[in-house]
Parts: sequence; C-alpha cells; structure tokens
Amino acid sequence: MRMRKRKWVEPYLESEGRYLIRNTEKKGHWLSMPYTCLYLEIGMGMGDFLIGTARLNPETLFIGFEKDETCVAKAIRKATDAEVENIWIIRDDATKLTDYFDDGEIDVLYLQFSDPWPKKAHHKRRLTHSSFIELYEKVLKEKGEIVFKTDNKDLYEYSLVSFAESAFQLVECSVDYHRIPREDICTEYESKFVSEGLPIYYARFRKGS
Amino acid sequence: MRMRKRKWVEPYLESEGRYLIRNTEKKGHWLSMPYTCLYLEIGMGMGDFLIGTARLNPETLFIGFEKDETCVAKAIRKATDAEVENIWIIRDDATKLTDYFDDGEIDVLYLQFSDPWPKKAHHKRRLTHSSFIELYEKVLKEKGEIVFKTDNKDLYEYSLVSFAESAFQLVECSVDYHRIPREDICTEYESKFVSEGLPIYYARFRKGS
Repeated sequence: MRMRKRKWVEPYLESEGRYLIRNTEKKGHWLSMPYTCLYLEIGMGMGDFLIGTARLNPETLFIGFEKDETCVAKAIRKATDAEVENIWIIRDDATKLTDYFDDGEIDVLYLQFSDPWPKKAHHKRRLTHSSFIELYEKVLKEKGEIVFKTDNKDLYEYSLVSFAESAFQLVECSVDYHRIPREDICTEYESKFVSEGLPIYYARFRKGS
Repeated sequence: MRMRKRKWVEPYLESEGRYLIRNTEKKGHWLSMPYTCLYLEIGMGMGDFLIGTARLNPETLFIGFEKDETCVAKAIRKATDAEVENIWIIRDDATKLTDYFDDGEIDVLYLQFSDPWPKKAHHKRRLTHSSFIELYEKVLKEKGEIVFKTDNKDLYEYSLVSFAESAFQLVECSVDYHRIPREDICTEYESKFVSEGLPIYYARFRKGS
C-alpha cells in the first residue's frame, strides 16, 4: 500500500522507541519467552490485520513488514493505542527479508491484498514472483505456511502457478473465501469487497511436500 | 451427465456401427495415419465439445468417454449428422480407463463440467479424486496435459488441491475463464453460465515437472 506522505510521519518514526526495528540485530534471535511462534506479514499496510490477530494470539510474536513510511507510522500509532505487546514492525523493502530473518526462522507468512502490478513488465515486483518465493522458502521453517489473499483475479491466477513451480505445495484454496462464515480479522479493504458481494481469493501453501 | 433413458437408445446403440467402441482391442493401437495425436474427453455428455473440437482439428483423433447411454446415443447421432471422421466413443465408467488405453498413449485429457458430487461421502466419485488422477497419470504421456473446467467452486478448489498432491503440475488457471475472449467450443451448459454472468473456473495441469 502506498500513501501520500504526511508531515508528522518522519519525526514520529524518528522518536518512536517501542515497535520499530531499526537494525538487523534480531536476526536469528526473534523468539524469546513467552513466545513460541513467529508470524510475519509482508505488506501489512496500516496494520489492522496484524494488530487484531496479534491480540487474539498472545503466545505468538507478530512482525509487520512494510515499505511505506506513512503506513508504518499509522500502524505504530494503532499498536500504541491498543497497547499490544507481541508486535514488532520493520520498514523496509521485501527484497531485504533475509537481512532480518535467519533460515527457517518463521512459522507462518501472510501476503494479503498486495499490489497486483498489472503490467507484464512489472510482474517481477509482485510479492508472489519466483524471486520472492525463494526468499520465503529460506526464512520459513520446514512445513511452514504461507497464507495468501487477494481480490485481484490476475494476481491470484499468477500466484497459484508461481507457487506450483516452487518448493511450496498448495494445501487449501478458495475462490470465494467469505461464502462460508470466517473468523479472521478483516481489514477495511477486505470488508468493503465482501460487502459489495465481490469474491476474495485465498490460498494456503506449505513448504516441502 | 445422467439423463432419463429413452426407448430408442438401446436398439440404436446395438445397431450403430461407426462410432461406438465395443471392446478393448484398440488399446495400444489407437493412432494410425493420418492421426498424430490422441485427445480424450472423460464425461463428454452429449458430445458438443468433442464433435465441435474434432471438426476444427482433423489431424487429431478424439475419443469421448461417457457412462450414460442416452448421452452416448445422442452424441453418436450428432457425430453421424455432422459426418465427423476423427472420433470414437466409449460407453463405460471412468474407472475402466486403463482397460482401453495403454501407458502414455494419450496426449491431452479433458474433464469438463463433471459431476461435483457435493456430499463429502461421495468425493471419491469426483473425476479429480486421487484414485482417478492416478489413472490419468498412467494413460497420459510424459508432459501430457489435463484441461479442467467447471462452474462449481467446491469442485474447483478440491481439484486444485488434489492435483497439487499428484504427479501433475498446474501450468495455467483462471477463476473467470471468459473474462477475456476465447475460441474454445462451448457447450450449451457452459454458454448458459456465461450468459448469466457466472464465472467458469479453468485449470491446465501437466504430467511431470
């Protein structure tokens, strides 16, 4: 998600001292008591899913990865207001993933409503391009899972084929995720689609076979 | 497709001498000049796709497999009227596939709008159940392909996962096949869905990786 940058964002992020990760020192050392699992969301946007899901799962450590500064600042404001404990936030590009995480360090990775980059020349920027999937394969543990959601048909179709060519296996999918009742935290973006009767496409992939 | 059996069907099929295969003698010997490829449709229904596609591809031999006698009789009547050369029709259950075809004998296999068998206890009857996929793996040549279409969400999702667990790899898919112009032969059934604005789900799988 890209947003217009606001004046308050830069000083706010500079002074923020609780949630924002400023270096790669935690690589290989993310988990400490009481946390037993590490969940990562790449492209967390304004953090609604991350924060909501973290509150429901206090035993799991959640990392939000997002390159847009304004999104990051807004997510941190929300996490601060909610006084949520089990969250860290990284402002960087997804190509830098392995700078922050060691091999096999992550249990579950979320890719939700990421930019569909419709032009063919931009497909390599899609978060489900093979070059990114190779990074996910590194940082996820064996049998670790990727949860993928989108409202975009082209991105969904592209991603199913892209994962089929990878070391991941499709274990579950839906071409209309909300046609049965779900208990996931929904962002405003997702809820808007659902309220308009549009389908949400979903897939879950597992590392290894 | 199952239909009410009509009186004319049985005597018609008994006397028919051009299209209907009555034994398994062609196993391993389907192809002879001028044909270079063997395409099979399992569950051809009344044969609209098979006959239309055969007429467009005179160098390919098309086999229609269907267990319903009335469908088979109607398809044969259509093929007779159209004087189509490159077709044979088998009336049998898909479980008998390997009685009729040798290992690696088929180039392309079509599964289109087959029965979704919605009840969990009946999933093993779905033509994309692992027991059928194992038969397809046998009769298809290396890199041979399966073309799958359905209007049924549950069957589509089930089938994507079922093939992901098999020796086949997803190479193309669509969650709304007709949102771009297509040149495939459409059956009445498929056209009706499209005219109502409902999506047709499509996938193409390749044997081997």
